[in-house]
Amino acid sequence: MMITVDFEKRGSVGLCEFLTLSLKQQIFDGNLAAGKKLPSKRTLAIHLGVSVITVQNAYNQLIAEGYIYSIEKKGFFVAELPSAFSEQRQGHRHKPLCKQIRRVPTTKPIEYFADFSSNSTLSEKFPFNTWARVMRQVLSTNDQKLLHRQNIQGVLELRQAIAKYLLEFRDMDVSEEQIVVAAGTESLYSMLVQFLGRHKLYAVENPGYKKVAKVIEQNGATHTPIPVNTDGIDLKELQKSKAQVVHLSPTHHFPTGVVMPIGKRLQLLNWAKDPRYGERYIVEDDYDSEFRFNGKPLPTLQSKDTFGRVIYLNTFTKTLAPSFRISYMVLPQNLVEPFRQFFSMACCQVSAFEQYTLASFIEQGFYGKHISRMKNYYRTLRNNLIKAILKSRFKNATTIHEEEAGLHFLLRVQTTKTPEELEERLQEQKIRLPQLRNFYYSENSHFLAPSGESIFVVNYSGIKKEQINQIIKRLEKVF
Amino acid sequence: MMITVDFEKRGSVGLCEFLTLSLKQQIFDGNLAAGKKLPSKRTLAIHLGVSVITVQNAYNQLIAEGYIYSIEKKGFFVAELPSAFSEQRQGHRHKPLCKQIRRVPTTKPIEYFADFSSNSTLSEKFPFNTWARVMRQVLSTNDQKLLHRQNIQGVLELRQAIAKYLLEFRDMDVSEEQIVVAAGTESLYSMLVQFLGRHKLYAVENPGYKKVAKVIEQNGATHTPIPVNTDGIDLKELQKSKAQVVHLSPTHHFPTGVVMPIGKRLQLLNWAKDPRYGERYIVEDDYDSEFRFNGKPLPTLQSKDTFGRVIYLNTFTKTLAPSFRISYMVLPQNLVEPFRQFFSMACCQVSAFEQYTLASFIEQGFYGKHISRMKNYYRTLRNNLIKAILKSRFKNATTIHEEEAGLHFLLRVQTTKTPEELEERLQEQKIRLPQLRNFYYSENSHFLAPSGESIFVVNYSGIKKEQINQIIKRLEKVF
Repeated sequence: MMITVDFEKRGSVGLCEFLTLSLKQQIFDGNLAAGKKLPSKRTLAIHLGVSVITVQNAYNQLIAEGYIYSIEKKGFFVAELPSAFSEQRQGHRHKPLCKQIRRVPTTKPIEYFADFSSNSTLSEKFPFNTWARVMRQVLSTNDQKLLHRQNIQGVLELRQAIAKYLLEFRDMDVSEEQIVVAAGTESLYSMLVQFLGRHKLYAVENPGYKKVAKVIEQNGATHTPIPVNTDGIDLKELQKSKAQVVHLSPTHHFPTGVVMPIGKRLQLLNWAKDPRYGERYIVEDDYDSEFRFNGKPLPTLQSKDTFGRVIYLNTFTKTLAPSFRISYMVLPQNLVEPFRQFFSMACCQVSAFEQYTLASFIEQGFYGKHISRMKNYYRTLRNNLIKAILKSRFKNATTIHEEEAGLHFLLRVQTTKTPEELEERLQEQKIRLPQLRNFYYSENSHFLAPSGESIFVVNYSGIKKEQINQIIKRLEKVF
Repeated sequence: MMITVDFEKRGSVGLCEFLTLSLKQQIFDGNLAAGKKLPSKRTLAIHLGVSVITVQNAYNQLIAEGYIYSIEKKGFFVAELPSAFSEQRQGHRHKPLCKQIRRVPTTKPIEYFADFSSNSTLSEKFPFNTWARVMRQVLSTNDQKLLHRQNIQGVLELRQAIAKYLLEFRDMDVSEEQIVVAAGTESLYSMLVQFLGRHKLYAVENPGYKKVAKVIEQNGATHTPIPVNTDGIDLKELQKSKAQVVHLSPTHHFPTGVVMPIGKRLQLLNWAKDPRYGERYIVEDDYDSEFRFNGKPLPTLQSKDTFGRVIYLNTFTKTLAPSFRISYMVLPQNLVEPFRQFFSMACCQVSAFEQYTLASFIEQGFYGKHISRMKNYYRTLRNNLIKAILKSRFKNATTIHEEEAGLHFLLRVQTTKTPEELEERLQEQKIRLPQLRNFYYSENSHFLAPSGESIFVVNYSGIKKEQINQIIKRLEKVF
């Protein structure tokens, strides 16, 4: 039996490719059975009216893929495919010659008029032209460096720039050796759970930033929520919990805004260094310390830690733009070498190009200027928003809790409506305004609003000044 | 007792900051005891000869940090610090006014003359000018988009470009919905272990790419090495192992170069879909399929999978430059929604800017051109290297195993020297040439070279043509 191939049907497909496909199909269909000898290249070429080279290339491709095999001086034979596979045969048809990429419509999220949820910052405020200029400088000077593989800690120049920045603005005396750059805070959490160990128990603040607990879980470790009081995390509960690592934001707790006073900070350091309990660690998340509106930024726990127990975390996502996946941590000296050992096979996941650009952006002072401009901008925005609330029709039913710091404050509202009703009404008004209760791990916590009250977390960083009047009108309808 | 502050010592530090520091110090030293009333702002200002504003700002800062507290109409009082902290007091000195960032010298790695290890590609070959041009285009057109937060799967435009590319060059018919972009292959492995579950057993190829096993371990799951035969992974051993997920590179096994024939691929798919064993998955790592030198690239397992059991992985690190941390995977349709749910709180870790640039680079055809240029370049490089080996003084003691594909081949050398001696001699010659044995999980595998032979993995992608003669001379001294 000679092989038939209907070249009429090949459309725009190349001769060799079409021949290969046809032969595969005949092998799948069983027309060419296992062990069967194929015609020689020359014979088949003449039979089909194609060149010997075409047949040769098709045969070579079939050999490479394992459909046929050759025996020297004997010829080409059909290989054996697993019999159990026959049921699948129907699945293998010639694919249509012009394939279309399937486009599954994505479900559209609700379009809010104003979004007070936590992850938005105003991208219009990003100094795009300056960034683009620095990028071009980096492009034109650093070409070779940009292409090399990075070690796990990230580009040296960026770590040096961060160390200098921390010294100047955060009064932290750290070496670039201690700094690890990573693609977002979640990456840092993941690395820390892997490095410190998933057999450890991780304490998180309640209420708090739930993503932390999620990442801890996804990395196979266990978390335990610890209540936050008016001066920060409850130390007695922390001690009782037997946790070995605690994640917190002492300078500006999310979402309550609570600041941990120095006395409690020192107690916390004592908790960490207590030799009776092995190695305890504090993960200090300093996520929005840049935006303290009055006085100097508060000193970090890290800067008071003489026992190597504090791991400091911060991010550029909040200060630059949400698309920047660049965060960093400062390890205590004693953890630097073990960390390197542990991740010796890994490398930094942040684009080298963006690392060099950011390094230069910080070095040239643009980052400091941007922060100070944004601080003024946010201060004005917050003042306007608060003023508008205090003039609104619901002013007598509200109290504002804020600490002259950070990009969120609490709004306590006297209302007889249930949380669910409020949420529904807010959604009708296309306002996304999360309630404090959403940040609790369990809802029977003592920090919850008494009945007749609801507390909202107002993260205003993504709001525009021009929207404020409209927002107040809509909120008046809700409350 | 009135408070004394020696402003002579303040150097370049501001008045207010120095006053704050001095007061903190006196509180730490116990000179200002807990509960003690501080002088009024006015009194202290007159006493120290500074403005009331200066004292007020210092007091406010101390209140914010929790060192002092105020009682309305009564004044300012020193807060209580934990007594257990006294032992730490020595640690708290005034920091020197001009702090220097400590620079710990880093240990320098050996400078090799030629490096045949796996992670190098030649960065000079990167089309830097084109890339820079595309970057500038993106910078000038996309500004707002670049700053938005990305979902876990990455920028839509890039996923569309990848889907089109896979259709054209890899004959894979997938939707952009199935694609997940991540910061490097290691990130993908991590996500997969978290998503598929760390209670599962993960099979890896032996010998193989050990980083896979490392990432599996670091994510808290267990791996089991399965021997690789001359036609790929040993299916009987895989079945026996009770693994539920298998990671492999069927198109070009690393490091042996073995290609899995179609028959075995179908058997493997049968292994995965066998309903008796719950959900089994194949992770197909197609890491260097672009560099097949003759014929078309081999079809992927993914394209033969009609049961939703194959997760396809590939990377731009090998094809562009090691600093590009952009990899992607193609999920089977049935896993798309569960994956999104699982990572609903996470976001893509690759710079949005770089994603848009790469999307445009692919869309404009530059990526395809680059691949085809690099294929020619690598083919010539490989041919030159092999020719030089076949002309060398050790030609009669060597056999070359290669599959017309990928950026590495095996060099089998007859030698009486032990592996350790060979390694030492290579190091003397500043040649980094890994031995196949290094890629085994345990050394008593049947694929090991018989005594009197050593097998080297020659990954030539980082070598320059001009080096070849010198490399051969050095190797002649070694063998």
